[in-house]
Amino acid sequence: MLPAKLVAELHDSIPPDRFYTDPVDCYAYSYDNSRKIFPPDGVLFPLTSDEIQHIVKLCNQYQTPLIPRGRGTGTAGGSLPEKGGIALSMERMLNIVSVDPSNRVIVTEPGVLNQSIQDTAKPHGFFWPPDPSSAAFSTVGGNIATSAGGPHAVKYGTTREHVLGLKAVTGTGKLITTGCYTTKGVVGYDLTRLLIGSEGTLAVITEATLKLTALPSIVAGITAHFRDLSSCAAAIVNIMSLQQLPSALEFLDIGSLNLIRNRYPEMLPADTHAMLMIKVDGSRSDVPDAIAAIIEACQNNGLISATQVTDTGNLWKARKALSPLLREIAPKKINEDVVVPVSTLPEFLNGIAQLSTQYQLNNVNFGHAGNGNIHVNLLINPDNSEEVARAERCLDEIFNLVIKLRGTLSGEHGVGSEKRAFITKEIDATTLDVMKEIKKLFDPCNILNPGKLFPKD
Amino acid sequence: MLPAKLVAELHDSIPPDRFYTDPVDCYAYSYDNSRKIFPPDGVLFPLTSDEIQHIVKLCNQYQTPLIPRGRGTGTAGGSLPEKGGIALSMERMLNIVSVDPSNRVIVTEPGVLNQSIQDTAKPHGFFWPPDPSSAAFSTVGGNIATSAGGPHAVKYGTTREHVLGLKAVTGTGKLITTGCYTTKGVVGYDLTRLLIGSEGTLAVITEATLKLTALPSIVAGITAHFRDLSSCAAAIVNIMSLQQLPSALEFLDIGSLNLIRNRYPEMLPADTHAMLMIKVDGSRSDVPDAIAAIIEACQNNGLISATQVTDTGNLWKARKALSPLLREIAPKKINEDVVVPVSTLPEFLNGIAQLSTQYQLNNVNFGHAGNGNIHVNLLINPDNSEEVARAERCLDEIFNLVIKLRGTLSGEHGVGSEKRAFITKEIDATTLDVMKEIKKLFDPCNILNPGKLFPKD
Repeated sequence: MLPAKLVAELHDSIPPDRFYTDPVDCYAYSYDNSRKIFPPDGVLFPLTSDEIQHIVKLCNQYQTPLIPRGRGTGTAGGSLPEKGGIALSMERMLNIVSVDPSNRVIVTEPGVLNQSIQDTAKPHGFFWPPDPSSAAFSTVGGNIATSAGGPHAVKYGTTREHVLGLKAVTGTGKLITTGCYTTKGVVGYDLTRLLIGSEGTLAVITEATLKLTALPSIVAGITAHFRDLSSCAAAIVNIMSLQQLPSALEFLDIGSLNLIRNRYPEMLPADTHAMLMIKVDGSRSDVPDAIAAIIEACQNNGLISATQVTDTGNLWKARKALSPLLREIAPKKINEDVVVPVSTLPEFLNGIAQLSTQYQLNNVNFGHAGNGNIHVNLLINPDNSEEVARAERCLDEIFNLVIKLRGTLSGEHGVGSEKRAFITKEIDATTLDVMKEIKKLFDPCNILNPGKLFPKD
Repeated sequence: MLPAKLVAELHDSIPPDRFYTDPVDCYAYSYDNSRKIFPPDGVLFPLTSDEIQHIVKLCNQYQTPLIPRGRGTGTAGGSLPEKGGIALSMERMLNIVSVDPSNRVIVTEPGVLNQSIQDTAKPHGFFWPPDPSSAAFSTVGGNIATSAGGPHAVKYGTTREHVLGLKAVTGTGKLITTGCYTTKGVVGYDLTRLLIGSEGTLAVITEATLKLTALPSIVAGITAHFRDLSSCAAAIVNIMSLQQLPSALEFLDIGSLNLIRNRYPEMLPADTHAMLMIKVDGSRSDVPDAIAAIIEACQNNGLISATQVTDTGNLWKARKALSPLLREIAPKKINEDVVVPVSTLPEFLNGIAQLSTQYQLNNVNFGHAGNGNIHVNLLINPDNSEEVARAERCLDEIFNLVIKLRGTLSGEHGVGSEKRAFITKEIDATTLDVMKEIKKLFDPCNILNPGKLFPKD
């Protein structure tokens, strides 16, 4: 329950169509793609930085949690109002402030969808590289809060590399302006990247200056089918040691392929046990050489075929459908987005196979192999407590393997609430203490998205 | 003078060949390329993180400034011991910890020279993109402390984009480990980029995980000569709106050209009043198209010629010689590295020309036009106090023009001590307060490089 005085003060300043307190209205803001449900006690839809400063100050005064939220597409529970409080939905801050093609810059409010940025940039010959699979419905603010990646990160990097500056309201209600409008700038500390990936725990992003990239002239696709996992993993390592990076290098294991086969029976050869979907982009003169080099890098004893595909649309639709298809076959999936150094992918993928056998778990793996970023899915029945316990032990061993291989527990989803229990495997106590102090500095009353990103006390 | 007890404790733990206190020995550590001189009271040459932790703790105990230092090539005074204390020279931390070509990673200690990293990466087909003109003698640690750029930043970005993780000792002596070993990673706050560009004020970098980039197959050069500044500026804007970015786009104004003419009389046509030196790199199939597009983009009424050059060596030698040549003709130069949005370069360069006429100052401008990063040099006689005063007023107006055009006061040199007086033009008081709090968090006793990066109180 929100303090009555807080509700009254908010009603004084925010019109009723932008402040929900009816539980029915609030319910749509209680979940994200982690599938957990924590209803907020209220939902606010600010339109300006001024309003956000006002709201943050009130929440400090009344010690009320404030959970910034884009469109709730995150998978790590980063936008769940775990401790109640107010969901701060940024979805109505929808202005694209300026489009400046000669400087390759778009300035935007945080509620604008990733796809809208792409649509705005495209006529000028540009795109904004972050491309999470939620791009059509996720917001720029949410992309920034998680430093979202996607398939193209292998060539273009993640959100961190494509934001020049931010405006943001800290947990004490201060409006700060970070970074700059130019592609170079070293005046003061880099608060821009400190906020990128901070999952709404330090500040509410109110404006972003996005750096655009030129659209490639052409995009080509290759598919490579392998008889076994090890040959496929070896090909990934070969491809990533080529000079020209592919613009996407997606891996699908046998579990993923079977899911696709169930939906699209004719799409895949029967003996394919592991597969790569590869994109190459660039200029008309450059791409053919790159395709030849990649096909050459795929050659090994386990290769069935590696060929250029003219119509990549269908295939990528299948790849994009994987996450929803998983939902259909398992009542619950534990979905991880671990990253290991590319050269260790053969060891990692074999390790996962062994662990899922050992723990008798259904397991489907796919993901952005060019970055070593694998979506490991353990498929479980949540009503089977013995299976749930096995999955938890298995997951713990998977994370240990990731750390042993010098990997990281999350490549793009973030910590949110889902990975809180594990981050001390990766970050030592001293470094974590520094992060906690930074949290305290930006948000001394622990108002903003409390509890997220850090291990439970 | 250092406290006697501190000196005694340091002598207990550090051998004499790694701890200088004799002013004669210390003198070489009292200056950098800002040409100011502040002798330290001692110089330490640590070899390990442990030693650095020990030193930082002692300096806290005795309230003694500790000034981290690479090879002193900075131009903004960032490594000057302005308040005395101990220069912490990282020049003997020279181990390249690991070279991992299959993951495109080198892990290195901070004292390793940028050039050594290039030499180590090259046989594997890689390079590390930061390329300050000091690359042959500047350290990786120094490059990181300033987020160094250089001509290639227009295509490849600056140091910020090419470091995956760090080890560092904070101002309280805590050893922290930031970032990760992989190209993706979003666990915890981005402390890596917070330290990059922090000019030794937050922590001493003790190890860096560098992300390597594939060497291009070929590099081609173009020179474009223009009859007037405006035509040249217009061509820059045209080139930067092309799809493929050049790998360098260096601008030289009439003052720069005359300096080169004095040294290399035959090199340049007499009627050239502004010039571009352009590099394009990539694959054998790609580069010819890019060259044609750039030459096309240079076409305007002021163009004298735009042609591919086969031997770019001489020309780049001339470009690199500019800074030393400037030293020869003027007893003192005020050297700035401001950045403006590329589309405003015509307005900016004309503005500089007007201001230097108005203030009757000799002025030479050159720099990384592709990023809008112009080295503005005001040439003055420091013994002429009236001229010095004029130059200061002119500089103030130049900075105002930069800010008006949405630029930044430093693209790669940093604030150090030289730009302290001006940063409130760029960073508002609230944001600066947050930066000050971060400084206090990392270094509560203000031991590390005290006074740098922030305006004087």
